[in-house]
Amino acid sequence: MATVPLVRYEDATPAVRAVFDEIMRVRKVDEVNNFWKVLANHPDTLQRTWELVRAVMQPGELNEVTKEMIYVAVSITNNCEYCIHSHTAAAFKSGMTKAQHQELLAVVATAHHTNALANGFKVPVDAKFDV
Amino acid sequence: MATVPLVRYEDATPAVRAVFDEIMRVRKVDEVNNFWKVLANHPDTLQRTWELVRAVMQPGELNEVTKEMIYVAVSITNNCEYCIHSHTAAAFKSGMTKAQHQELLAVVATAHHTNALANGFKVPVDAKFDV
Amino acid sequence: MATVPLVRYEDATPAVRAVFDEIMRVRKVDEVNNFWKVLANHPDTLQRTWELVRAVMQPGELNEVTKEMIYVAVSITNNCEYCIHSHTAAAFKSGMTKAQHQELLAVVATAHHTNALANGFKVPVDAKFDV
Amino acid sequence: MATVPLVRYEDATPAVRAVFDEIMRVRKVDEVNNFWKVLANHPDTLQRTWELVRAVMQPGELNEVTKEMIYVAVSITNNCEYCIHSHTAAAFKSGMTKAQHQELLAVVATAHHTNALANGFKVPVDAKFDV
Amino acid sequence: MATVPLVRYEDATPAVRAVFDEIMRVRKVDEVNNFWKVLANHPDTLQRTWELVRAVMQPGELNEVTKEMIYVAVSITNNCEYCIHSHTAAAFKSGMTKAQHQELLAVVATAHHTNALANGFKVPVDAKFDV
Amino acid sequence: MATVPLVRYEDATPAVRAVFDEIMRVRKVDEVNNFWKVLANHPDTLQRTWELVRAVMQPGELNEVTKEMIYVAVSITNNCEYCIHSHTAAAFKSGMTKAQHQELLAVVATAHHTNALANGFKVPVDAKFDV
Repeated sequence: MATVPLVRYEDATPAVRAVFDEIMRVRKVDEVNNFWKVLANHPDTLQRTWELVRAVMQPGELNEVTKEMIYVAVSITNNCEYCIHSHTAAAFKSGMTKAQHQELLAVVATAHHTNALANGFKVPVDAKFDV
Repeated sequence: MATVPLVRYEDATPAVRAVFDEIMRVRKVDEVNNFWKVLANHPDTLQRTWELVRAVMQPGELNEVTKEMIYVAVSITNNCEYCIHSHTAAAFKSGMTKAQHQELLAVVATAHHTNALANGFKVPVDAKFDV
Repeated sequence: MATVPLVRYEDATPAVRAVFDEIMRVRKVDEVNNFWKVLANHPDTLQRTWELVRAVMQPGELNEVTKEMIYVAVSITNNCEYCIHSHTAAAFKSGMTKAQHQELLAVVATAHHTNALANGFKVPVDAKFDV
Repeated sequence: MATVPLVRYEDATPAVRAVFDEIMRVRKVDEVNNFWKVLANHPDTLQRTWELVRAVMQPGELNEVTKEMIYVAVSITNNCEYCIHSHTAAAFKSGMTKAQHQELLAVVATAHHTNALANGFKVPVDAKFDV
Repeated sequence: MATVPLVRYEDATPAVRAVFDEIMRVRKVDEVNNFWKVLANHPDTLQRTWELVRAVMQPGELNEVTKEMIYVAVSITNNCEYCIHSHTAAAFKSGMTKAQHQELLAVVATAHHTNALANGFKVPVDAKFDV
Repeated sequence: MATVPLVRYEDATPAVRAVFDEIMRVRKVDEVNNFWKVLANHPDTLQRTWELVRAVMQPGELNEVTKEMIYVAVSITNNCEYCIHSHTAAAFKSGMTKAQHQELLAVVATAHHTNALANGFKVPVDAKFDV
């Protein structure tokens, strides 16, 4: 299915195992997701991507569940099936309720709706926004 | 610039004015944005779109600023210039700080990054997500 | 603005002029659009693209205005500003009424709306569709 | 597979059943599609989406088959697998012929082709289109 | 699965067989891919698409492997599952190494990352680029 | 125009100046592009994005011009106007010829064309690709 094989922990190089270990420690899980097993074919990409995700997704000015919902919104719009599944799960794990999931999807769909209208009519940006 | 003209309040039909009035009342503004002035060429679309946006964007399980940030995330991904400008402004008006704007953009960019990797490698969805 | 210059008729090579002449003849216009003037920097691309557009857009099982409306729908979804402008103009020239333009945009926006919902919820394809 | 379960008629609340009943009546079918069964987890979204789709997709200035073909064009461009399947089926049911399906896809593909060229070269909009 | 059936060589018309024969000859393969078997339902589209692909993808100013990598980059961005699989395979066949595949994906993901930032902040084009 | 102001070198903090200095040194230019001046509002994002771009875009298994052409291909597909301009310029600076630019755009457009056909017909992935 994937264009490269999944690398299992037991077959991984020490450098890849070190990243896997850190992901499992930070995420408090027993096994890394398929995403990381695929990236493990390319240790540089694995390392760089994990550092990026770790830095950006830690709680900061926005809390974890808000960040995960934003991630879901982008993943739906890019139609990344893997990311929709993994980040919807992560958002629920971070505390998103079913009712919030409903509203998240309703906002995403409405944004698509008005994005199409604004692009289709080529609505000129209001002077007050264009500073 | 737009593919249809902007309808000004003073030139609008009574039905269009009624929607404009309601938008100004709910939004607490003196004038509607260009988006609504363009839709006013098509009164049914104006009415339907306003009802949709009003119902979905009112505070509910998610608060207003979270909804506006999700709207910005989708609009960036669809690259709707008008919507990026208007909803970034709305998010700031609803209380988004500059530091939160920074994190919002960082999450959106990181999601694009991993969306591309997951799609490019066709990472198979983990069995645990696929319920 | 463009990444390559516009080629004017008077500066064009005989091969480019021949394509320009055919476009003007088929389209019944005095001057080709900027799109063709840009492609003229790459005569092979100009020739190939014109032949493609000419063959596909001629009236056949679908009439001209229906084809132009479908073209507009795709161009909005890809957010091609140039194509939205040129094909909306072409659709009006082929007979699209203002009321049809309203419905075209309403269908496009509604499709975006439900596309986002179906992708966001990963709705499984009904067995009856999946033949 | 879906991120939320499918709601069956026999398990639905009275409010959801009322929408299902109306969909079956208007569409003249014995069972609603998976799309509606998924939305039924979120009764407000179900109600709002059905009203939107019903209002926009009824025959008006454009007939049903033209609207369904436009819907297919958008769904292909957004790459919504569910929507491509369901609206291609709906277009055939509304009278689209195989030969029209061929031309629909050819127009969609050609629009993608020239959208990429116009965006890639950043072709400036002709003054005559930019009114 | 497909919205139209796959046409097998033994069931094909002489015109379709002629295109299939040429594809097999040029590509040095014993059987055409599913893509062509699906297009064979629409002989005009089959013929036109093959001529386009053949002309554009032959080695020229850019060599074959570079062209295939560019094709993969676009297919990931459009999230065309079929095209990602077939053109990743074609790129490997044309000589792309595993290490090059890693870099290709890293560049694609980084481009998505900065595309989102540039679009999200609406960075104005530098005067020096805008000639 | 931008949603945040451009930060000039003379107004920048020491941390931002350090990144600007490194960009100018590595790129051998006298001034950084607007992209970096915008990111400078968010020093963490500036630092992280520069490190990412620097690491990924340095010559490796793929040379610089090939990487820039892949970047252009993605930027066209995401329709990032800023990125199309800046990376087309970078590709020319790295040695891309006009004839190669022509072929790059022709490959991108053809990929869009067949992406739409494969997605629209939902062509099933050949067993041989799906390993």
